[in-house]
Amino acid sequence: MDPFGIQQRGAEVPICSQAGEPAILQLIRQHLQEVTNPAPEGIGDDCATWTPPAGETLLLTIDPVVHGIHFDNSHPPEAAGTKLLNRNLSDIAAMGGRPGPALLALAMGPDLRLDWLGRFLDGIAEACVRHAVPLAGGDITSAPRNTFTATLTQTGSATRPLTREGAVPGATLWTTGQLGGSLASGRHLHFEPRLAEGQWLAAQDAVLSMTDLSDGLAKDLPGLLPSGTQARLDLPAIPIAPEAPTLQHALADGEDYELLFTLAPERPLPDWPFKTPVRQIGYIAEGQPQGTLVNLADGKTLESSPGYEHFCR
Amino acid sequence: MDPFGIQQRGAEVPICSQAGEPAILQLIRQHLQEVTNPAPEGIGDDCATWTPPAGETLLLTIDPVVHGIHFDNSHPPEAAGTKLLNRNLSDIAAMGGRPGPALLALAMGPDLRLDWLGRFLDGIAEACVRHAVPLAGGDITSAPRNTFTATLTQTGSATRPLTREGAVPGATLWTTGQLGGSLASGRHLHFEPRLAEGQWLAAQDAVLSMTDLSDGLAKDLPGLLPSGTQARLDLPAIPIAPEAPTLQHALADGEDYELLFTLAPERPLPDWPFKTPVRQIGYIAEGQPQGTLVNLADGKTLESSPGYEHFCR
Repeated sequence: MDPFGIQQRGAEVPICSQAGEPAILQLIRQHLQEVTNPAPEGIGDDCATWTPPAGETLLLTIDPVVHGIHFDNSHPPEAAGTKLLNRNLSDIAAMGGRPGPALLALAMGPDLRLDWLGRFLDGIAEACVRHAVPLAGGDITSAPRNTFTATLTQTGSATRPLTREGAVPGATLWTTGQLGGSLASGRHLHFEPRLAEGQWLAAQDAVLSMTDLSDGLAKDLPGLLPSGTQARLDLPAIPIAPEAPTLQHALADGEDYELLFTLAPERPLPDWPFKTPVRQIGYIAEGQPQGTLVNLADGKTLESSPGYEHFCR
Repeated sequence: MDPFGIQQRGAEVPICSQAGEPAILQLIRQHLQEVTNPAPEGIGDDCATWTPPAGETLLLTIDPVVHGIHFDNSHPPEAAGTKLLNRNLSDIAAMGGRPGPALLALAMGPDLRLDWLGRFLDGIAEACVRHAVPLAGGDITSAPRNTFTATLTQTGSATRPLTREGAVPGATLWTTGQLGGSLASGRHLHFEPRLAEGQWLAAQDAVLSMTDLSDGLAKDLPGLLPSGTQARLDLPAIPIAPEAPTLQHALADGEDYELLFTLAPERPLPDWPFKTPVRQIGYIAEGQPQGTLVNLADGKTLESSPGYEHFCR
């Protein structure tokens, strides 16, 4: 569905520039009313207010979706809205956090169709309900014709924020789910942020560090490697999604939104209480050049696979 | 300065699509290094972490700047960056809050010039230093050619968040600074968020409610009026900026970024410790139709002045 309409004289014109700001705000409140509280906790004041759980650390992340980049006219508007919330929630999951309120900023071309916008907001609201995220506030602004950028800030809280730092040589490498083929399978739009899994992992003292796989294993894994170390990968153990034609796709496609974590040397993974698959895929070892991925079977460095690259497509 | 460059063979090409993501991230770290802490408090992990001051309420706001809407090629890139932070800080000021960390999401056309981006980031960094705001994290993504949207989330904290609710009939209406002519004077880019004033006002128990003037007095004032009340305005008392040709401009131009607040009936404003001017401009009275602005001198409703309208320009 094309988000942008053509203004027609005489016809009902459901685009932003004809509706004007009060009607757009009314539409937003209507589609998000189920998931917003009264101001100032919800939409309506200069800032939203929140009191994070006592003794927990506040988590903050921000991620946009841009028409023509993260989704296009072939995607249902609801799926684009759901994706916006879920990719932020995946960052909260990657720290082992529980979600708090979210903020939404919409920059909309004057020719944006209101029916498209309503369905996009429905997708956000549906994901908010699913993950108990209150939509606390935001902003709307005009943007150039034929453009739509929605930026969401997700808050969260954690007793023990699990960062990318903390692994040591000998730590084992683990991943949830299956990797690669996210575009072919539609999982880049329809995925489940691993919130419960992330919270559980953060509660295990054997888990040392964690991240989510958004740009692909090849690009995201080096972020967990301490200085002077490499990843030794057990290639047959890497869980390749059925839609990924080769291992290379599992390493580089990106948008997996699975969790990648490290476990202290010689510590087993405690009993895993989830249906989501989890696999050990290798371990961390001292070695040069540092930050590289090495095939455990033959000691050869994997050919550089750049992973998802945002600016050279 | 035009933010967008033309790719030229053989010449040094300082645009995003040629540099690629690692070089862009490197540029961002370089320009923001003064104002970011080590991860996870600063740039570099899946989420940024923060521990707000104990016993205070967390404040959250989000606002973008869009090329072609909030600034254009005639404006220095630094001024656009400074404006992005300052308009968010004005929302924190409007709640009586102190700023915490900020998050920045950049959606950049592949033809965005890196030298332009560097200067934009310098403007953010300069304002961060001025107001002691740490830049805690963010996201970069590609966007359609010739477009640039920067969205910032500002956190803050307050002992007593001063909302828009709380005024009663008989409460007096006050504003800081001078209103109108923000575009003509350049104040829409160069303004000072009223953080100290907002914090001081929130500490005065006689102050009942507050907002900042972003869309103009005529549009923002009704947000402070309780149900069944009107604003009775002392028009000669409204502080018209020298660049505003008429009172109408002071009411409707918008982007004043001054504070508008209410004081409990028959309570004086305690000794004002700031150089920023402050004026009583009227009071709140019961009356119908509710939410309207009435000229105190003749009892006539002011002609509807819509204020800044984001979608009908």
